[in-house]
Amino acid sequence: MSSELLVSVTGSSYPIRFAGDPRRIAGELLGQLTKGGRASVVISDEGVALSQGKFLREIFGHSPQLILPAGEQTKSLSVYGQVLDFLAANQVNRQAVLWAIGGGVVGDLAGFAAASYLRGIECIQVPTTLLAMVDSSVGGKTGINLAAGKNLVGAFHHPRAVIVATEFLATLPEREFAAGMAEVIKYGLLGDATLFGRLERGPMTVRSADLAAVIRRCCEMKAEVVRADERETAPTDGRALLNLGHTFGHAIEQVTGFRDYLHGEAVAVGLAAAARLSARLGLIPESDAARVEPVLTAHHLPARLRSPLSSKALMEAMQHDKKARSGRLRFVVLAAVGRAATRTDVDPAMVEQIWRDIGAT
Amino acid sequence: MSSELLVSVTGSSYPIRFAGDPRRIAGELLGQLTKGGRASVVISDEGVALSQGKFLREIFGHSPQLILPAGEQTKSLSVYGQVLDFLAANQVNRQAVLWAIGGGVVGDLAGFAAASYLRGIECIQVPTTLLAMVDSSVGGKTGINLAAGKNLVGAFHHPRAVIVATEFLATLPEREFAAGMAEVIKYGLLGDATLFGRLERGPMTVRSADLAAVIRRCCEMKAEVVRADERETAPTDGRALLNLGHTFGHAIEQVTGFRDYLHGEAVAVGLAAAARLSARLGLIPESDAARVEPVLTAHHLPARLRSPLSSKALMEAMQHDKKARSGRLRFVVLAAVGRAATRTDVDPAMVEQIWRDIGAT
Repeated sequence: MSSELLVSVTGSSYPIRFAGDPRRIAGELLGQLTKGGRASVVISDEGVALSQGKFLREIFGHSPQLILPAGEQTKSLSVYGQVLDFLAANQVNRQAVLWAIGGGVVGDLAGFAAASYLRGIECIQVPTTLLAMVDSSVGGKTGINLAAGKNLVGAFHHPRAVIVATEFLATLPEREFAAGMAEVIKYGLLGDATLFGRLERGPMTVRSADLAAVIRRCCEMKAEVVRADERETAPTDGRALLNLGHTFGHAIEQVTGFRDYLHGEAVAVGLAAAARLSARLGLIPESDAARVEPVLTAHHLPARLRSPLSSKALMEAMQHDKKARSGRLRFVVLAAVGRAATRTDVDPAMVEQIWRDIGAT
Repeated sequence: MSSELLVSVTGSSYPIRFAGDPRRIAGELLGQLTKGGRASVVISDEGVALSQGKFLREIFGHSPQLILPAGEQTKSLSVYGQVLDFLAANQVNRQAVLWAIGGGVVGDLAGFAAASYLRGIECIQVPTTLLAMVDSSVGGKTGINLAAGKNLVGAFHHPRAVIVATEFLATLPEREFAAGMAEVIKYGLLGDATLFGRLERGPMTVRSADLAAVIRRCCEMKAEVVRADERETAPTDGRALLNLGHTFGHAIEQVTGFRDYLHGEAVAVGLAAAARLSARLGLIPESDAARVEPVLTAHHLPARLRSPLSSKALMEAMQHDKKARSGRLRFVVLAAVGRAATRTDVDPAMVEQIWRDIGAT
């Protein structure tokens, strides 16, 4: 059984195709392309090659494949160059389609390569992690990191299609699944109190009967936000709402050199911090803010810093966040459980206090 | 005296501002930005820093400047990385504007950096060569080279404004001026018989009274072609017409390792080749094709290969041109002097003969 969700973007739309098993849909799309005389090339990573080797061989055995090292270090300018050289070496032309099969690193990097090679070729995103399924594979943001910060370089480049296949999650390490759940919890907090209530009643696992439905719900929310504010240009709210927990989270990742926390783990701490900030600003009652930490914990996610970090360094990292507008920090806060809003008038002293409340020194 | 030409692109437009002296317009634009709290950063090269040092100091003395080595080697992934690191090091934010002051290399590279840094910041193109004025600074194509070929990576990114100031041409080396004239001659051939007639009557020099008018005419033609086919997706004609002479020219550059011919010089040979091909195809009389070579020669441009190259290698390089569609070569040919068209049905044997006619072995 498969279903489809259409993402509307300026002048066009693309489908997210949901399935248990990715084989049929991927095989079908690949067959159509090949029949139309269009080449396919695959970018993936060593983790996927190990756990999904059979899928890569069976479906993409005849397509050139570039298997990259797994991990955030891969999202660099030099690996971007390797991908471009690979495309050129395989004489990939404008009609070709790049398949990005992997987690957020592969999707973002390969998506940026597709956006820029020959000034843009089509790509199909096949996310293999929960995080990529609910977040990075939808919405068209692609990019790489610089030494100075994450995702500082990239392009908006919508995929031709996204294939979301829950079967990939069966082989996902538990820590990665949990990291993806941080984004799912984020969606509940920012826009769907019913979803958040579901997560409160009991943690989701890879065996939850409603996993596919919950992933689809997150994709729907992301698609709706992206449709309304494709390039994150809305002066308030809009696509920026998806950054709930991320201003804090990015600072944690930055200060710890992207080593100690997975992205989702840093976001989890960020969600707890954003909830505290919202209560401190009087936007939600303390009792609502207190609902966030148990849900994070039940999903094996941190709600506080695992070890103390300098609040000064964290504040400094926040100032450099690329989301800062004209030097002012922009926070996504909760107006209720299930409703978020952007704020730019937050007192830095209050933010620093929040950092200390969750374990900074 | 200054004048303006509006380039219409999807959803917006931007001005090309013409002037003798760039100081007033640049100072005015910079002042407006600064007043609006928007930072400016400058990317330029050592050639410009030498010949236009006073302009850079006087107008941009308070803006961070990155001066790159001059030459095609600069249009590389590694220098692109340097530009990105420079932007990050100067904490350039989304409101900032990047000024690309230089020839095509600076414009293409800095334009691509602007297109991708923070997924896109605004840029202002200030072309300092004739080639960049009539060609690369207008139309939104940005990019860098790979070892496998020129302009294989990039983005469509329209500038916020273009400043075309003929005063820069006073310090341009003669060979560079001639190379730019190849593109001017191209515009005459592809779309303006009157312009071509003007060039036939006597060569343009940097002191020609009508230089500014001719440059403006070229920009108008480019703007019109870009408006009609912004992303070069028209199945025939459209923006591809701007590539008159370029399929041949790129092959020459490729085979000679981008060392022996300036881009405009290779295009000049390509224009002569395209004219010969058009006559051979029976599209124009031999007598019209014969009008091209004298105009090139009068502008100190080659109309034949300067030394023999292998026709096999040239044919091979053509096959790899990124403009090739589904493996078929696409040529821009002349339907008349002043009117071009695209053709995909050209017999390779005929093309190989043309190469031999202009000096290949």
